[in-house]
Amino acid sequence: MSPYWTPTVNRLTPYVPGEQRSGVDIVKLNTNENPYPPSPEVLKAIRAVQGDQIRRYPDPESTELRHTLARYHDLDSSQVFVGNGSDEVLALAFLAFFTDTKPLQYPAISYSFYPVYCQLYGIESNTVALESDFSLDLDRFETDAGPIIFPNPNAPTARAVSVSEIKKLLEQQQQSVVVVDEAYVDFAGQSVVPLVKHYPNLLVSQTFSKGRSLAGMRLGVAFGDDQLIEGLQRVKNSFNSYPVDVYAQAAGKASMNDEAYFQRTVQTILQTRENTVHELQQRGFQVLPSSANFVFAKAPDNTAASLFEKLNRCGILVRYWSQPHLRDWLRISIGTPGDMQSLMSCIDA
Amino acid sequence: MSPYWTPTVNRLTPYVPGEQRSGVDIVKLNTNENPYPPSPEVLKAIRAVQGDQIRRYPDPESTELRHTLARYHDLDSSQVFVGNGSDEVLALAFLAFFTDTKPLQYPAISYSFYPVYCQLYGIESNTVALESDFSLDLDRFETDAGPIIFPNPNAPTARAVSVSEIKKLLEQQQQSVVVVDEAYVDFAGQSVVPLVKHYPNLLVSQTFSKGRSLAGMRLGVAFGDDQLIEGLQRVKNSFNSYPVDVYAQAAGKASMNDEAYFQRTVQTILQTRENTVHELQQRGFQVLPSSANFVFAKAPDNTAASLFEKLNRCGILVRYWSQPHLRDWLRISIGTPGDMQSLMSCIDA
Repeated sequence: MSPYWTPTVNRLTPYVPGEQRSGVDIVKLNTNENPYPPSPEVLKAIRAVQGDQIRRYPDPESTELRHTLARYHDLDSSQVFVGNGSDEVLALAFLAFFTDTKPLQYPAISYSFYPVYCQLYGIESNTVALESDFSLDLDRFETDAGPIIFPNPNAPTARAVSVSEIKKLLEQQQQSVVVVDEAYVDFAGQSVVPLVKHYPNLLVSQTFSKGRSLAGMRLGVAFGDDQLIEGLQRVKNSFNSYPVDVYAQAAGKASMNDEAYFQRTVQTILQTRENTVHELQQRGFQVLPSSANFVFAKAPDNTAASLFEKLNRCGILVRYWSQPHLRDWLRISIGTPGDMQSLMSCIDA
Repeated sequence: MSPYWTPTVNRLTPYVPGEQRSGVDIVKLNTNENPYPPSPEVLKAIRAVQGDQIRRYPDPESTELRHTLARYHDLDSSQVFVGNGSDEVLALAFLAFFTDTKPLQYPAISYSFYPVYCQLYGIESNTVALESDFSLDLDRFETDAGPIIFPNPNAPTARAVSVSEIKKLLEQQQQSVVVVDEAYVDFAGQSVVPLVKHYPNLLVSQTFSKGRSLAGMRLGVAFGDDQLIEGLQRVKNSFNSYPVDVYAQAAGKASMNDEAYFQRTVQTILQTRENTVHELQQRGFQVLPSSANFVFAKAPDNTAASLFEKLNRCGILVRYWSQPHLRDWLRISIGTPGDMQSLMSCIDA
């Protein structure tokens, strides 16, 4: 507390990201990072950046990267926005589309940054409950009661809704902006990016931090009708003209151009996920169907909290929330097969 | 315009950065970039980053870089904030300290991003006039009428105020946060960073984009009392946990550790500036005293607008504003001696 803190600063309870502890013996399964490094093409593109490019401002519009993304998704560049990680993209989208509107609607259990953005900007919000199996019924959103955001797949549950369910929602909610946060869509979810051509109220956010192994580079994207993207650009250009540096722009482009590496990495993670689900079930865990690079697992006999501590002592970081609906569950990122073996060994110890 | 644009989006007139045109024949004197590449130590630090660091999130607190900056300025890490360029640092500071307060005060001629931030957040503001010689008289700020921000040296005038003048202001304005934007302080201005230990209402922002040749990396800093810095951290952690990527953190640290290279580069630019002022004066320009890596020069006989066009045709980019008080002036970045020779040749042609 300081006499110089404004009401804005005072009302905040900032987001707390997963711990970034490092060390040779640490197995990091707490922030859904990719266990594999980015494509060699990405490292090559990074090495090709010259000192002369660093002394100059980057392209504020990330033109080449947006063009590459547009081509990949069969869209126009005017339907693509690039920012400093999908958290920044979301922060700008909240400011652009959720302030001075009817209350925002989002799932009661979802990405815990959403209520933080609401606090930051003074946005009113209403949450909709998940079903008892942690699935999200989109019919629970009230029609034209305000803009909507939800992650698909959802976090921390890993459960996904289908494209047809989202289509129905978009038909119902034509007065409201609907943001689908596809941070985890690379892992066998169904993307609604192709729908942005048909629904002017749809904004889809994605990240390079998960499937594309670029968490350290800070790169996020949004796709939408060109008018929504222009709205985002206006806010971004009123906040920070150049949030994406020359390395991130080069890395993002190289990543999009190495589809084979991306697919291979994702397939490996899906295989490890399948094995992990099986191993956890064998140990008495209940595991929700996962469409993400993590699993949400209910520990047997109310042991989640103590297991979280035990894993921590083994040097294995996972995510645990003590809230009523979540306190029997752990969110476990999918690492390498070796990482998951360490996890099982510690559970069994 | 879109039916989905909120009042927030509608009220914006985004900041327009200087053109980032590139090409072998372009002489870029329009965005105050450093004409020299960063220290070889920076490039070495960048090359040392491994793929395994890229796949992980960066340290959200930029701990090592903040520690390095603190040591350099004889401060504690708790008095140092790091962000994605000083524009982001300022954008977060406006949100943290200027919303829900009395109207913000800033000079009528200064960094043109300030009114844009005000629009973005709906901040009321009052401007104070410069003197007829474009100097800034800090006594013009009304006492305790609201928070204050000004660039020192000022942009686009390049004129600086002294540390003793700022001290007097801080004594007068003890109820209000005072932000001194030192983007250009490396070029012979006097920094007030040492004052943050004594004035809990002082926040000082700086950038790595100018003196340290890292515009392409996006790195900005703020120094202040630990309570002000905590306020900034709270806002940053409610917006984007990781705005500074692994490369920028490594590059910033390496840059701070190569003081000799930094001093050499700055001295070269100061020498070129002196020569440039002399050459412009010989050609009938009036040049304001400059403490920055650019000069603000009044073209002879109301030729600024036509000269801007002529330079553009020569492939020489400078900055021109058509507003009443500025329309006879050009802002010209200091490049290499060769860049400035091209400028003079085009003027003379």
